[in-house]
This record gives sequence, C-alpha cells and structure tokens, in this order.
Amino acid sequence: MSGGRAQIGVTGLAVMGRNLARNFARNGYTVAVHNRTYGRTRDLVEQFGGEGDFVPAETAEEFVAALERPRRVMIMVKAGGPTDTVIEEFAELLEPGDVIIDGGNAHFEDTRRREAALRERGLHFVGTGVSGGEEGALNGPSIMPGGSPESYESLGPMLERIAARAPDGTPCTTHVGPDGAGHFVKMVHNGIEYADMQLIAEAYQLLRDVAGYAPDEIADIFRGWNEGRLGSYLIEITAEVLTHTDAATGAPFVDVVADRAEQKGTGRWTVQTALGLGTPVPGIAEAVFARSLSGHTELRTAASPLPGPQRTPMGRDEAADFADGVERSLYASKVISYAQGWDMIRAGSEEYDWHIDLSDVAAIWRAGCIIRARFLDRIRAAFTSDPWLPTLLADPEFAKELGEAQYAWRDVVAASVRNGVPAPGMSSALAYYDGLRAPRLPAALLQAQRDYFGAHTYQRTDREGTFHTLWGGDREEIRTDGG
Amino acid sequence: MSGGRAQIGVTGLAVMGRNLARNFARNGYTVAVHNRTYGRTRDLVEQFGGEGDFVPAETAEEFVAALERPRRVMIMVKAGGPTDTVIEEFAELLEPGDVIIDGGNAHFEDTRRREAALRERGLHFVGTGVSGGEEGALNGPSIMPGGSPESYESLGPMLERIAARAPDGTPCTTHVGPDGAGHFVKMVHNGIEYADMQLIAEAYQLLRDVAGYAPDEIADIFRGWNEGRLGSYLIEITAEVLTHTDAATGAPFVDVVADRAEQKGTGRWTVQTALGLGTPVPGIAEAVFARSLSGHTELRTAASPLPGPQRTPMGRDEAADFADGVERSLYASKVISYAQGWDMIRAGSEEYDWHIDLSDVAAIWRAGCIIRARFLDRIRAAFTSDPWLPTLLADPEFAKELGEAQYAWRDVVAASVRNGVPAPGMSSALAYYDGLRAPRLPAALLQAQRDYFGAHTYQRTDREGTFHTLWGGDREEIRTDGG
Repeated sequence: MSGGRAQIGVTGLAVMGRNLARNFARNGYTVAVHNRTYGRTRDLVEQFGGEGDFVPAETAEEFVAALERPRRVMIMVKAGGPTDTVIEEFAELLEPGDVIIDGGNAHFEDTRRREAALRERGLHFVGTGVSGGEEGALNGPSIMPGGSPESYESLGPMLERIAARAPDGTPCTTHVGPDGAGHFVKMVHNGIEYADMQLIAEAYQLLRDVAGYAPDEIADIFRGWNEGRLGSYLIEITAEVLTHTDAATGAPFVDVVADRAEQKGTGRWTVQTALGLGTPVPGIAEAVFARSLSGHTELRTAASPLPGPQRTPMGRDEAADFADGVERSLYASKVISYAQGWDMIRAGSEEYDWHIDLSDVAAIWRAGCIIRARFLDRIRAAFTSDPWLPTLLADPEFAKELGEAQYAWRDVVAASVRNGVPAPGMSSALAYYDGLRAPRLPAALLQAQRDYFGAHTYQRTDREGTFHTLWGGDREEIRTDGG
Repeated sequence: MSGGRAQIGVTGLAVMGRNLARNFARNGYTVAVHNRTYGRTRDLVEQFGGEGDFVPAETAEEFVAALERPRRVMIMVKAGGPTDTVIEEFAELLEPGDVIIDGGNAHFEDTRRREAALRERGLHFVGTGVSGGEEGALNGPSIMPGGSPESYESLGPMLERIAARAPDGTPCTTHVGPDGAGHFVKMVHNGIEYADMQLIAEAYQLLRDVAGYAPDEIADIFRGWNEGRLGSYLIEITAEVLTHTDAATGAPFVDVVADRAEQKGTGRWTVQTALGLGTPVPGIAEAVFARSLSGHTELRTAASPLPGPQRTPMGRDEAADFADGVERSLYASKVISYAQGWDMIRAGSEEYDWHIDLSDVAAIWRAGCIIRARFLDRIRAAFTSDPWLPTLLADPEFAKELGEAQYAWRDVVAASVRNGVPAPGMSSALAYYDGLRAPRLPAALLQAQRDYFGAHTYQRTDREGTFHTLWGGDREEIRTDGG
C-alpha cells in the first residue's frame, strides 16, 4: 500500500482535536482529518479549510490511506474505553513503523500498557500531554510526549513547530521519556495546577475576609503581583475574573458563581500516584480535598451552625501590609507546591526508569500550559545548574526567598487560623517547610508507639541496627536484625 | 466425606494466627491448626497445648478432614499473592457451604474479588479485619467481618466469644456487611489510627518545643489527659513510651529512636480510596504524608539549613495554660479525623451497597483495637440517636465541644506556625472545620478560573442551570445546559 500525502492525521474532532488539526495546518503541514461522524469533519473543512491543507476522510481506511509513511495518527478522543477502541481500530489498519499518538488525558499506567501492547505489534505509541486548553491547542500548547526515541525523531519536529514558544524562543515540547513519561508529567502538571489554583483562591479569600478588600481592589492587587515574581497566566486570569461584573445582577461575578469546585480526575490521580511512590505531596492533596469538600453540600449545610471566631476589621494601612504578606505567603507556598511536584517527577522517573530531565520539564512549561509562569525559568535554571538538586527548597535562590518570606508567611497563616478563614494549602505548605527543615520530628515517638503496640521495631540515632523493646516485659531492648 | 470434630481451623501460624488459634482454644473451641511448615504447628501444640483442644495437622488434607461441617477455615498469611495461593489450595479441598475466612490486612477490592469468585463455587468467603495486634489476637481483638449473612450465622457466635468486650459487656464484633465491607472498615480504622498517632505526636512536639516540657513531664500530662475525654489506648501507651529511659544512654527513650516513621500501606490505601470516593480526608492524608516525609532523609538533609523563627521560652504558668490548649486542640482535631473516617465509611457503604451501621462500627472499636478510646461510645451514641447524621460535626454534643475548643485550637495552631513546630494534622483539621462551616468558599473563584481557561462552565447562586462566560469575547454569559 503506497502512502498518501498528509504528514499527520487527527481523528476525533471535538474542540481539542479540531484546534490541534488547525494548528498543524496553519504551520504548513498537510493534515488528514477524521471523525466518527463525518459531520464534524465536513464542518472543520468548511469553516477552516482556508487556513491550510486539510484532507478530509469519511472512513478510517480513507484516513489511513491519506497519510504519508511512516504514518502519524493522532487520536483525540475521551480517555479510557473510547481511546482503547479507537487505538484498536487504527492499529489494525497501520503497519510496522507507524506512530499512534494519544493526545488525551490518559492515565500514565494505561499509556504504559498501550505502548507495550503496540510495541509488540511493531507500532510506535506516543502518549502525550497537551496543556493549554482550547486556545493553547490552536495557538501553541505545551506538549509532553512520551514514547520511543524513534517516534520522537519522526514526530518531534512537527510538535516543535506547533508548540508554544518560551520567552527565549525555544519550543515548549521535548521528548519527556519512554512509554508513560509524558502522561505522567502531564498528570503532575495538573496536580501542581490544582495546588496553584487553591493557593490563589486562599489568597483571594484572605484579602477579602481578613483585609476587607472588595473584588475589584483584589483584582488590582493581583495585577500588581502579576508584574513581579508571581507573574503567571493563573494570576492574570484571576485578576480578569475578579474585575468582571455579573450583567444580570450587577454584583461582582465571583459572588454569583456557586462555590462548588469540580474536578476531572488528574489531581486525584496525582495524589494517588504520589502515595504509591511514597512522595509527600500534601499541598496537592489539600487542594484536591478542598475541591471535594466544597462540593459536599450536605456536609457543609450540616456544619454551617458551627461557631467561628470574632473578626476584627483592619485599617487600610494594616490591610496593605497584610496584602504584602499574602504575596509572600502565596509565593512561598507556590514554591513548596512546585517542589513537591518535581520531587514526584523524580520519584516517578526513578520508579519507571524514564530518565526525565527535570530542567526540561520546567523549560516546556514556561509557555502554552495553564501553569505557565515567570518563575518556571528559575526552576529550569535551578535544575540546569544542579541536575541532582534533591529538592527545589535546597536551591540557593529559592532557599533565600523562602527564608525572607518565612515571617510574613507565618503571620498570614496565623491570621487565617485566628480569623477562621481556611487556608489549608498555605498551612500545609508551611508545615511541609517546617517539617523538612526540622532537626527532629515526632516521627520518633510514632515509631516507638508502633513498636509498643505492634512490635514493628525501630532504629536508633546512635548506632546501626533494628531494635525492639520488650514493652510487655522488663522493657529490655533486643536487636532484631541479627546484628 | 464425613466431618471431623474441630469447630474451626487456623492455617498460617505466625504470631497473629497462633494467637487467634489460642484465643479460640481458650474459649472452649476445638481448633485444627496447620502451617506450611509443620515445625510451627508442633511448636504451638508443645508450648500451648495445655490451653485447650488443638488438632495439629501436617497436611492441608488432614487439616480439612479434622473440621466439622460446614467447615470454617481461617487463613492467616501475608496479604496479596500468598493469600490467593492458600485460598486456592483450600478451595479445592472444601465443599459447598464451607466458609473460608481471611483475617489478614487484605485490600477490600481483593476481598470483593475473592468473595465473588468463591461464591461462584458455592463457598462462603469472609474477609475480616482483626485489630489489636498480637496481644489483642490472644486476649480479645476487635473483629470486623464482611461476607454473606449465612457465613456470619455460622461464624459470628465464635467471633463474639473471642472478641474483646466493650465496657458495657458487648462483644467487639458484628456483621459489618457483604463482601469487602469488613476489610474496608478495617482500612479506615487504620487510616484513623494514622491520624490519631500523628496528632498525638504533634501534641508531644508542641509541649516539648513550644512549652518547654521534658519527656517525663509530658508523660504526666498525657496520663492526666488519659483520665478525661481523651482516654484511649494510644494516649496511655504514649505516656508509657515517654516515661521510658534508654538503658544504654540514660537518655529519654524517645530521643534515641530514629525519627523516621514507617508504614505498611493501609493508611495509603485509605487516602487513595477516599480520593476515588470523593470524600475529603485531608487529616488522614497529612498523617500519611508526614510519615513519608520523615523517611526522606535526603530531602531533610538538603532542607536542614532553611531558617526557622526565633522561639521565645515560656514561663511555667504560660506553659500550663498552653498544655490545656493543646488538650483542646488535640481533642478537636481528633474529632475531625474521626468525622472524616466515618464520612468515608458512609461513602464506601453507599458506593458498594453495604448498608453498614455507622453506630455499630463505633461500638466494635470501643475495645480490642488500637484506636479504642472512651469517646467511641459517644460516636456510637451519636449515630444511634441519628443514623442519618451527615457528619459527626453536626452531632449536638460534638458541635458544642468543638465550639468550646475553637479559640484554644486556633491559639495552638497559631503557636505551631509562629514557632516553626510543624503541626500539619492539627492545622489541616482546623482548616477542615473552618472550610465546612464557611458560608462562602473561594471554590467560586476556582470555578470561574476553570471556566476561563477550559470552558468548564459553572453554576450560579441565584438560579438553576449551567453557564459559561465568553471570556475571550464580549464576556456575555451563555447557558450551556439547554435550560
């Protein structure tokens, strides 16, 4: 079977698939397009056919025939069962050396399974994270492909063309690593995004309820922050949201939105996976749970009569100082979230033997994705200058900033506690900071309890070995590791 | 094949199995005993044969032949693969109507799978939680069996004989529910245990580093608490541990134990499962992560130069007041952990259609298990008087106590923050309290952000429907649910 002329095919033309197809076409590629129902394919070509060279295909066979070889088939359908169905449909039509790309939000374990199965059939499978929403898909997303080096050789140059560009001009994509590495990193991206959004939400609520600012004043504060080290897409859109007035009521928009946050699962996956890897990501966990708590209307209604503390209104000067403290607290907490995320990427990379370049991950998140932020370039720099940096907290620059922020951070968390304005993300981040730097943790007491009730043994600070105290008897200590 | 005379058989004679076998024998049952290697079986009979009527069996066939019908075979081997192997070995020797009991710490999903598979073969499968450690197994554990009602009819009376007894004399076991219900409840028990231990550890560290008490003074404080509403096994043994002096060094024992807490997995399962159920259990998550953080020596070493705050020593009177506050904070945080645990049991019960009696769960944890505590009787009472209580926080008595504790709780968490003594469990518990009772959460801002970057839509506070704002255009609001 001779090849067609399209350099890439996109099947599944809902908004993400359609926009990626357009992005490829706008960048000069010939793009075969296909959808389960032909209507969407026809609409795409009718509406956007002038943007580039599309080859519409009614059937899977036509679609495959339209592709040059080795073929590149990008699947943009629902994660889970639908993805498996479509993969199987195309795998039967493809030939050894062809590449199937899954650009959906698959769980990295599914991607590992699929990659292994398709590899056996001689096909390359690339599971890739794509971040940036609809707008990013069209104009330049951050792309996180995993798969064989050969698949990246074939696909990488095209992804580099359609990806976002960092301020220094480099494309926001790289070969993340084998099999599930790309979807793993995308999952952690989303986990960090959960934490980031939660921290911003807490900062907003503190400025509102503790400092007494109105939403439009808080928007101005966020705009100011956006010029500094917190500069980021999420801060920018938060200011936009807080500026917006609801047309129907004339009230601040944020006040008419129901306060029940939803989620689609990647944040939950991040925490579940971190638990399996033994990596502490409490900040991400608090963010995921804060969302689910907000949605439990029956619990919230039942708990609503519980008393809170008296609040003392702040004067304007005090409020301005407090706002400065919130900036520091938000920044420090954000550094902690990212530290937890990178820690997890390293743990995943070691567990699955992926050899992920931690600096590259920061580099490709500098633009295109939801958590794009000025300070990602500094994370990139931190892991470039020391690829073995055990934690972002140990980078000299971040350490210095955390040290400078710590008193304000403590003041803000204490204020949240005293005023009854919950800030689980910031509190948890500070506890992580204090936990990691603590010379002694009460984990010692905990190990002693475990030895007491379950003979789980303990180690000592002053010599090697594993020990058990005969708590029920004379409390003699015995060595249990035969040393 | 005619039956033997043993009423129950125990296979797997490591310490838990051996002690359960002895417990059955001491209660007048004839117990067939079996182990993969016969040495352990012989040792058991040689050492403890005088305690009751044991029937030692060298082979699986002999063991099965020794049992009266319907047979009851209790498997006490390692969770996971070994359990499957042993189940399969015995399933082939048993007959319809016989009962296999797994008393290990199986994941409830494994128990569901095994129960379904054995049911097809006409066998009853009982996955049961057993808590109380070695000592409990011997003298009376808390037992949480799941399985068919018929299996409980056959097995329940025996479990009721060997179980611990609550202060009111009732046995600490009940038919928790079908298939995985028993192991699910045991898993949550362990998750609560993680939280309980973490909170106690934080209380200790605050008393030591903020109030300046020595370990033996803290032991006295804990002994005092043990007489009150915090009265519990874990508080009691904490006092014992803190009283203990290391023989080798003469130092307080807690100071020579390495401060790296270990874990065996049920805490992690609890959080992973809660994430899947959408139940917020941040307190349990913080406890699991605090353990894993303590074990990350490389991170801790790297973060150790980070600066903490100056601490101001407390006078004795101030310290005594602070200790009172820590009691309130510990108690309130403990109530929150238990509320999260019960919330999760309800969610699991609904998800799997188990019809778990929430009051019974409290009742059977009043004695025998690691988290046995005076206040479990009050949880029992709360769910007895209102089986539909949406959360423990809504019980009038607990609500009153939380309200009375809240200022001291805030003071203690603020002190932990200001002094740099991490208290992630207490902070998280307080944030949960403030989050649940909050009239408005910043989840509204978060939903607005999601709508901005991903067109994820939102709901409004003032009318039904699902909406999206055209952020990139004129910011008109459109209704997306066709209403």
